[in-house]
Amino acid sequence: MKRFLNKPENYVDEMIEGIVAAHPKDVKYINGDLRCFVTAREKPGKVGIATGGGSGHLPLFLGYVGDGMLDGCAVGGVFQSPSADQMFEVTKAIDDGAGVLYIYGNYGGDIMNFDMASEMAEMEDITVLQTVAGDDVASSIKGEESKRRGVAGIFFVYKIAGACAATMKPLEEVKRLADKACANVRTMGVALTPCIVPEIGKPTFTIEDGQMEIGMGIHGEPGINKGPLQSADEVVNQMLGHILADLPFEKGDEVAVLVNGLGGTPKEDLYVMHRKVSQILNGAGIRVFHVYVGEYATAMEMAGASISLLKLDEELKTYLAMSANTPLFSQVQL
Amino acid sequence: MKRFLNKPENYVDEMIEGIVAAHPKDVKYINGDLRCFVTAREKPGKVGIATGGGSGHLPLFLGYVGDGMLDGCAVGGVFQSPSADQMFEVTKAIDDGAGVLYIYGNYGGDIMNFDMASEMAEMEDITVLQTVAGDDVASSIKGEESKRRGVAGIFFVYKIAGACAATMKPLEEVKRLADKACANVRTMGVALTPCIVPEIGKPTFTIEDGQMEIGMGIHGEPGINKGPLQSADEVVNQMLGHILADLPFEKGDEVAVLVNGLGGTPKEDLYVMHRKVSQILNGAGIRVFHVYVGEYATAMEMAGASISLLKLDEELKTYLAMSANTPLFSQVQL
Repeated sequence: MKRFLNKPENYVDEMIEGIVAAHPKDVKYINGDLRCFVTAREKPGKVGIATGGGSGHLPLFLGYVGDGMLDGCAVGGVFQSPSADQMFEVTKAIDDGAGVLYIYGNYGGDIMNFDMASEMAEMEDITVLQTVAGDDVASSIKGEESKRRGVAGIFFVYKIAGACAATMKPLEEVKRLADKACANVRTMGVALTPCIVPEIGKPTFTIEDGQMEIGMGIHGEPGINKGPLQSADEVVNQMLGHILADLPFEKGDEVAVLVNGLGGTPKEDLYVMHRKVSQILNGAGIRVFHVYVGEYATAMEMAGASISLLKLDEELKTYLAMSANTPLFSQVQL
Repeated sequence: MKRFLNKPENYVDEMIEGIVAAHPKDVKYINGDLRCFVTAREKPGKVGIATGGGSGHLPLFLGYVGDGMLDGCAVGGVFQSPSADQMFEVTKAIDDGAGVLYIYGNYGGDIMNFDMASEMAEMEDITVLQTVAGDDVASSIKGEESKRRGVAGIFFVYKIAGACAATMKPLEEVKRLADKACANVRTMGVALTPCIVPEIGKPTFTIEDGQMEIGMGIHGEPGINKGPLQSADEVVNQMLGHILADLPFEKGDEVAVLVNGLGGTPKEDLYVMHRKVSQILNGAGIRVFHVYVGEYATAMEMAGASISLLKLDEELKTYLAMSANTPLFSQVQL
């Protein structure tokens, strides 16, 4: 494992200490618990947005805590759900009377713990609503969207809901926008290599030399097409074909695009992929409002990528275009 | 090579096409030459800043063309200098009568070609000044700073000079600030793996399993300490020790910090490293004005990192704090 590590059992704590030390004006942790991560710049009266999930996916999840995005994050071990107690502590910390929206990915442990935290919050008269993101079209067939895993597309849900909350809209409205973003986003991923969870010390799965797996999840969940590594254009062709057919995205639609690296793939290669994405969308008569290329949801050093499309309307465009300022993502008003 | 590529000989062109397609409101190329890359939002009367260098280092170099940073970039093949003609074309495109500053890294090919471009510009009555960045303390001993390679610290030079030019200062003043940033920045890198130049198709050097090389350059230039991979804390200790001793940075100084990933190293690991950087600076009584952690100067999929410190004074802080908006770097006013 060619990584910069100290003791593997301290990995998550040290990572969070490093983030808080780098961005002390932006974020802090509460109650002395490094896994309860909140914004350092509270906005009085604003709806709070909390997320949570396993570590190892930066900027997900805690990297998006900041202005115009999220207010708090419960942090789990690498690829592990945080506890309900931690989610509840974050909830209390970010509630300012306007209620809290949970936005998280569709994974069993996260759902169970966020449900428990929601019940604990209810007992303290904090109103909590939930939006569960499941954008990975490879993880379940059309018609069974509710079974789909949450992957990089959750970035768009955070961005839209975060901007909506920043304009001081009420909880129901923030949830409506989050749900609309979820309903309108589709993602497909491809993996070339596994990654290593530091405490385990070896790859949790293998992909042979010269092979790739289209549709693989960010924890190595099985994909839909394992086979020889193909050209960038052919990989994009396949991935985007599944995405376009699924919603479906049609001529005249307007979209935002996210070409996301999983950690070990160079930015150069992501732009080579984006070139083909752009050509296909042009050919299909789909207009592009804005493009994001970079690392938005990773699996440490895993080589691979994902493509997400978000179908836009006027209100989604308005919220997507607003500025944001978080430790791992900044956007000037578009 | 587990990468998303098409024909290797088209790699740079396709990468640039992907960038221009992703950021059409921000950047464009001129004269039909994909290697002559300029901002799409010219500012009348502003000093132009041009850079150039080999591909394979995104966000360097072209990723910093945009508001508050650079105005143009001549793009070479992977790890190759662009031509003097391309640099000259960029120079003409971005000059608006206020003159042009070249800022680039200290590599032989770049120096030769920028010198030639500067002479060509002079013949057309365009005033050109030059700042050559050499921040890598591993590449030459103290006292011979002019022999040092330019690495990730050039980000600070772009940021400072770009902000200065954005405030409509004259060419001499922009150059003074660029030179001051150069004089005040120090960097040390460490590599764990090589990378593969697509047209070559195999690693250009090797680092054995379990080994690392402190001080290695971003093209694989030899470092100062090749040996067994050590803990993150120990690696940071060594790197920062060289940096602090070199300027030297002393108690009471105020600095900006850049912990830069070379491409294949997870953001989590960079933050683990930053934790130790923060502890050492605290212990040394050095104040931290702002911290950047992420990928600012890479070598495609190379695993490794670098640490840069920029010694600040009031005017450097003012320019560092200003907002910037480029395809691969955005900053809200600090």
